[in-house]
Amino acid sequence: MSLTLEHIVKALGGELSGPTDRVIEGLAPLQSAGPAQLAFLSHPKYIAQLAQTQAACVILKSEFLSSVPAGTSAIATPDPYLYFARLTRLWKQAHRPADPTGVHPSAVVHPSARIAPDASIGPLCVVEEGAVIGAGTVLRSRVTVGYDCQIGERCLVHAGVVIGADGFGFAPVQGTWEKIEQLGAVRIGNDVEIGANTCIDRGALDDTVIEDGVKLDNLIQIGHNVHIGAHTAMAGCVGVAGSARIGAHCTVGGGAVVLGHLTLADHVHISAASVVTRSILKPGQYTGMFPLDDNAKWEKNAASLKQLHQLRERIKRIEQQHPQQEP
Amino acid sequence: MSLTLEHIVKALGGELSGPTDRVIEGLAPLQSAGPAQLAFLSHPKYIAQLAQTQAACVILKSEFLSSVPAGTSAIATPDPYLYFARLTRLWKQAHRPADPTGVHPSAVVHPSARIAPDASIGPLCVVEEGAVIGAGTVLRSRVTVGYDCQIGERCLVHAGVVIGADGFGFAPVQGTWEKIEQLGAVRIGNDVEIGANTCIDRGALDDTVIEDGVKLDNLIQIGHNVHIGAHTAMAGCVGVAGSARIGAHCTVGGGAVVLGHLTLADHVHISAASVVTRSILKPGQYTGMFPLDDNAKWEKNAASLKQLHQLRERIKRIEQQHPQQEP
Amino acid sequence: MSLTLEHIVKALGGELSGPTDRVIEGLAPLQSAGPAQLAFLSHPKYIAQLAQTQAACVILKSEFLSSVPAGTSAIATPDPYLYFARLTRLWKQAHRPADPTGVHPSAVVHPSARIAPDASIGPLCVVEEGAVIGAGTVLRSRVTVGYDCQIGERCLVHAGVVIGADGFGFAPVQGTWEKIEQLGAVRIGNDVEIGANTCIDRGALDDTVIEDGVKLDNLIQIGHNVHIGAHTAMAGCVGVAGSARIGAHCTVGGGAVVLGHLTLADHVHISAASVVTRSILKPGQYTGMFPLDDNAKWEKNAASLKQLHQLRERIKRIEQQHPQQEP
Repeated sequence: MSLTLEHIVKALGGELSGPTDRVIEGLAPLQSAGPAQLAFLSHPKYIAQLAQTQAACVILKSEFLSSVPAGTSAIATPDPYLYFARLTRLWKQAHRPADPTGVHPSAVVHPSARIAPDASIGPLCVVEEGAVIGAGTVLRSRVTVGYDCQIGERCLVHAGVVIGADGFGFAPVQGTWEKIEQLGAVRIGNDVEIGANTCIDRGALDDTVIEDGVKLDNLIQIGHNVHIGAHTAMAGCVGVAGSARIGAHCTVGGGAVVLGHLTLADHVHISAASVVTRSILKPGQYTGMFPLDDNAKWEKNAASLKQLHQLRERIKRIEQQHPQQEP
Repeated sequence: MSLTLEHIVKALGGELSGPTDRVIEGLAPLQSAGPAQLAFLSHPKYIAQLAQTQAACVILKSEFLSSVPAGTSAIATPDPYLYFARLTRLWKQAHRPADPTGVHPSAVVHPSARIAPDASIGPLCVVEEGAVIGAGTVLRSRVTVGYDCQIGERCLVHAGVVIGADGFGFAPVQGTWEKIEQLGAVRIGNDVEIGANTCIDRGALDDTVIEDGVKLDNLIQIGHNVHIGAHTAMAGCVGVAGSARIGAHCTVGGGAVVLGHLTLADHVHISAASVVTRSILKPGQYTGMFPLDDNAKWEKNAASLKQLHQLRERIKRIEQQHPQQEP
Repeated sequence: MSLTLEHIVKALGGELSGPTDRVIEGLAPLQSAGPAQLAFLSHPKYIAQLAQTQAACVILKSEFLSSVPAGTSAIATPDPYLYFARLTRLWKQAHRPADPTGVHPSAVVHPSARIAPDASIGPLCVVEEGAVIGAGTVLRSRVTVGYDCQIGERCLVHAGVVIGADGFGFAPVQGTWEKIEQLGAVRIGNDVEIGANTCIDRGALDDTVIEDGVKLDNLIQIGHNVHIGAHTAMAGCVGVAGSARIGAHCTVGGGAVVLGHLTLADHVHISAASVVTRSILKPGQYTGMFPLDDNAKWEKNAASLKQLHQLRERIKRIEQQHPQQEP
């Protein structure tokens, strides 16, 4: 596995300082890169690592060129992290076969499903009646796409994903539950990536909708009739309850929960492990998470927390009986 | 896809106002229903939508009949939501093929497994030695049922479910873990629904038990020897640790965690994302969740929370040195 | 299913009191064990159960031999729980067939994958190009092992596990996300157990590493480039974000979240449902979890919590204006 610097710069641009025929055998973090590896500097705080790097070449902004050690090549570019992202794709294309187009013989695909000729349906996938898989989309392995569900173009769906299982809908009747059949489907836009073992349920009446460019990590639960706006990203283990409407360009941290029937505006950012219990109409970062502490301290603080409302009343009474002057 | 109102009322009852031959082409929410769609009104707070609906027909209580706009048909029934649930089933039966009975050729079923003749074992399922699948039960696709595990009648198991993996049991020995083989199985009652990628572990010595009518959403973890009482429902991403005993008619909100060896009485309701750390013997709603706030405010409050026990001590001291009169 | 006490003691040691030819038909908890079953006493607090047990035989420390009821046999051993663990394995070996060695015909294994002759690749597994599966390792069913990923010896991987899906890496560019190809793999040591539907992502540049003896429960998410030290155990539904480095001999409770790029020292123990937001360099037990309460009390306390920082300021002002004497 190797590429010359010349090959890289021809494909991705950037200004190369150093010999063009230098051979790169791998990509690596700046700190640990060896003398045949290429690294990148994306943030000035790592500049100390630059002086000591063993890397063959470093991708960086031109303003840091003067700090590159002698003998190390450099590629100057305005956005080193983006350059690096593109380099990973160049690298993968050069060294690994593309996912094969067509349907793996072990997959179970209903004859009525419409699968783009250059889509890739991996081993042991299930594509049900009437499902649609767009051009260039890849289902890696053991993915289920339920009946009538649609996936757009250039999507990547990892192993174990379930799209179009029934939403969780029951009517209570005398202490038992009667099933509400889920008559909607799932519609997924273009350029969506869905992580391993993530589930996206079909809608009850209307469809569940995932817009273009959404990125979902592993083990995420998306309930029925959820709508996720374009280019929103969610980290692993997030749960989004039914009929939540999440805007575009949002981020949701790992393990967070969004309750049902809420609206999140565009550009809302939810911190990891936080629980969204009301709609959020103003962009910004939102958090709700019990701070970690050593167990003994936590026990004391948690016990006090169970009396916090009383403490507040006690403070109020003190203030009333011992009046305060304005500071 | 269509049904006449006459067909619907014949099948499900209710009092129809309006022409019987009106053709319904779909079900929809009251707010968005079009002139060939059927909607329902389940709660008086949506009565304003009724005046403006475009729906062909609305299911509602007879007391609201006078508010139905001219030209809109109506079906009066004591429980519109239940009527709607049954209508979704009628609709699905009329328009989609039932899951085929028998074993899909791609499934891997051990010859000793006992599968009811009218059960449906979907594509790429695995049913191990000695497992039992009851009459009318459907395993959708890519479901694993471990050896000796039993599923009752009329159950619906969604894609990716794993029933009967080993419970998590290890004995510590000098800093390492020795496996405790899990010798129990899983027993699931009748009319149970299990959501996509949910896992129910086999018991260590006795069985893990899921009673009749339990409804589990997606990505739920049920540990070994858990017992879930009849008609309890759990939303997505819940985790129930080993040997917890959960009563009948309970609900557990999404992302909640129930620790091991606890008992929850019947009719206990746990809010989403709450952590149950002790047994709950009294019916009611229980919650424990850090309230969401904008990140800057959260940071201040979380920092203060880490000193809450000290704050309490300071209040106590003020009260002692500046005595309060009874209000 | 039965074993004589003689057979058990010959295999596992321990001092038997009572007839050697007594036939044991099952293992059971001390409290519920019947007259043909074997139980164990691991903790003095259950000694009251010993007097009333119906068990055929009890495994216990020799100091409790005098409390064994007449007619009950006993096996004395220094560590009854460990003895019991080994007995479960003896029991299983005697009564269930071992997982068959070789590749199940329904599995999809790339010809370049190297699979030890005595490994067991279960039904409907996928083993991709260049993957390595060590001696004695068992993939139960529907497991995916991605290209170039390595699993050591004597590992047990439960159904639905996904090893080597892409890590979650994207570079932001003008409001959209550009994929960073994940060029690393996953390396798993010996004697590792991985629970059902758990996911371990491949690294971005370097590998994700799981060291020897790690035990992971079900539905766990391990992000790219995470490093988990030897003999660490994690309960169900844990999420570990990218590049976290977790020490050896740690435990992580169910539903806990570890944020990315953190370091946890050896012997750190995280309580269930806690969120680790900073590195922990000192061994110990750490917790952060909102205490459960009935919903009405929780609402009051949660509302007060959103003003906690203000309450703290108010206490400070009282103290300044009404000075306190040292107690």
